[in-house]
Amino acid sequence: MKNNIEGICRIFREKDRFLIACHENPEGDAIGSQLALALALRKMGKTATVLNADPVPGNLAFLPGADSVVYEEDGSRYEVAVVVDCGSSERTGRVQAELCKPPVLVNIDHHRTNGGCGDYCLVDPEAAATGMLIYRILAAMNVEIDSDIAVNIYVAILTDTGSFHYANTSPEAFHIAGEMVRRGIDPWGVAEQVYETQSADRLRLLGRVLGSLEIAAGGKIAAVTTTKKDLADFSARKDFLEGFINYPRSVIGVEVAVAFREEDAGEIRVSFRSKGRVDVSAICQAFGGGGHRNAAGCIMRGPLDEVKRKVYGALEAALR
Amino acid sequence: MKNNIEGICRIFREKDRFLIACHENPEGDAIGSQLALALALRKMGKTATVLNADPVPGNLAFLPGADSVVYEEDGSRYEVAVVVDCGSSERTGRVQAELCKPPVLVNIDHHRTNGGCGDYCLVDPEAAATGMLIYRILAAMNVEIDSDIAVNIYVAILTDTGSFHYANTSPEAFHIAGEMVRRGIDPWGVAEQVYETQSADRLRLLGRVLGSLEIAAGGKIAAVTTTKKDLADFSARKDFLEGFINYPRSVIGVEVAVAFREEDAGEIRVSFRSKGRVDVSAICQAFGGGGHRNAAGCIMRGPLDEVKRKVYGALEAALR
Repeated sequence: MKNNIEGICRIFREKDRFLIACHENPEGDAIGSQLALALALRKMGKTATVLNADPVPGNLAFLPGADSVVYEEDGSRYEVAVVVDCGSSERTGRVQAELCKPPVLVNIDHHRTNGGCGDYCLVDPEAAATGMLIYRILAAMNVEIDSDIAVNIYVAILTDTGSFHYANTSPEAFHIAGEMVRRGIDPWGVAEQVYETQSADRLRLLGRVLGSLEIAAGGKIAAVTTTKKDLADFSARKDFLEGFINYPRSVIGVEVAVAFREEDAGEIRVSFRSKGRVDVSAICQAFGGGGHRNAAGCIMRGPLDEVKRKVYGALEAALR
Repeated sequence: MKNNIEGICRIFREKDRFLIACHENPEGDAIGSQLALALALRKMGKTATVLNADPVPGNLAFLPGADSVVYEEDGSRYEVAVVVDCGSSERTGRVQAELCKPPVLVNIDHHRTNGGCGDYCLVDPEAAATGMLIYRILAAMNVEIDSDIAVNIYVAILTDTGSFHYANTSPEAFHIAGEMVRRGIDPWGVAEQVYETQSADRLRLLGRVLGSLEIAAGGKIAAVTTTKKDLADFSARKDFLEGFINYPRSVIGVEVAVAFREEDAGEIRVSFRSKGRVDVSAICQAFGGGGHRNAAGCIMRGPLDEVKRKVYGALEAALR
């Protein structure tokens, strides 16, 4: 890994046409980092196009520049491809081929798995968000961070630190967030847009799913279940379920939270969150899945009762 | 209001026996501010007693110094009474009489309603948390902020800014939070203790209450209802319902969130949250209650259906 922030600044100053991509199913850090960089390059008089495989999530559509994102573009029209917040180039999805066409590739990321490919890279797994690396680059180039750029950087940090809750919330994360507030962003207005824009049906589905709460292993396991009927009753989109697993995790004494979800064809999607003692990626691997120590998942064959029996059995063994 | 941080520092240096109180039903900012100050004064070789009317909430019991809080004490044994995070002295509740006994009274607060009474005061309504004022005082006295003091100041800011979401989240709030992380506190460990320690029954009650979601006024009003049966079914304590109103508020398009709660003797407690356009304190005043523009409440006579009809009618008129 050959971090080269000076090289990146030089390329950003010298070249004129930039194509900026991120990973599939982008979230706040990916979109915020892309847009902050695109707005800054445009301020410098450059052409900067944000090309993504998937749409901007509805709760991020308010971000300045979000309406300029494109989903089809010819990469050969650009001098530099910039890939942000992407652990590997495959994660850019169906736009990957276009990113190979510009002669120069810049890689800006904070994933531990990032191998540092590209002609120029800035990869720092210690950074809480890729948006912090964009800030460092803009600061190094002496680009004025206006309030439009600031809100994008702020959302990148806000979302990737889980509202400043996660262990990655460093003094630098707080410092940059404070600087963005100083530049005029409104923390409450932003939090409201990002977090307070769910549908009534999603909230009703959450109520139903919380009603399924099961406690096992003497309080060390908490699980919620979403059936196909639940999804149908509330016309649920796939993204409705995001974050639901945080609720069983929040119960006092719980070591591992589990979310079961009925899929088509008799399959059950099982998600795990560990508070640290149990390595849930090992358990998921035994069931043909994978993930990280504290967050992992797998897909198992039903019926639901039998899946639960197997999952609780494996977790109880790990908790002993 | 005669802010006098130098005078406070002098008193803290010169005197030896301090009695530190806060408001009834204390939360993170009150407890964190008290304990940070008490720990700092003890480091300076002083006697510092934290005297409260009500117990430390369970989710704050992990705070360093929390086990030293007392609930009965003779104020005449002290040279200085310090009241923190208290808009008026009555808010100290049943310990108020003891706070009048020491010859010197110090008042440290950030409530807009604080009249600045006391021999020495530091009242700054622009501060997001009283914990920030404690930080300023300790910095002015050059007291080393160790990790035990730091976690108390951090929790004061974390809770009074709603995890850095509220409009009061200033650059200074972010700056001090970052400094506390630099002093060794673990943001995730703290957030887990403060926010991820609910009972399974509270979560089940939340599920039930979310199932009651009603949308009115074409999506501008969202309301949830908690019946006496709901409370009984989950052996709910009073504090179980705290924060529930944030869920209807989080629905997209909602201008006013309402929480109805059946009380004894046929009364209905009604809480309101406005996103800004409607002044809910005016509506509550018409029903004999009160509060702030964006957060208010009242108690009305049932039956529930009739209360809802009146509340929706008043809100629909205000929304026109």
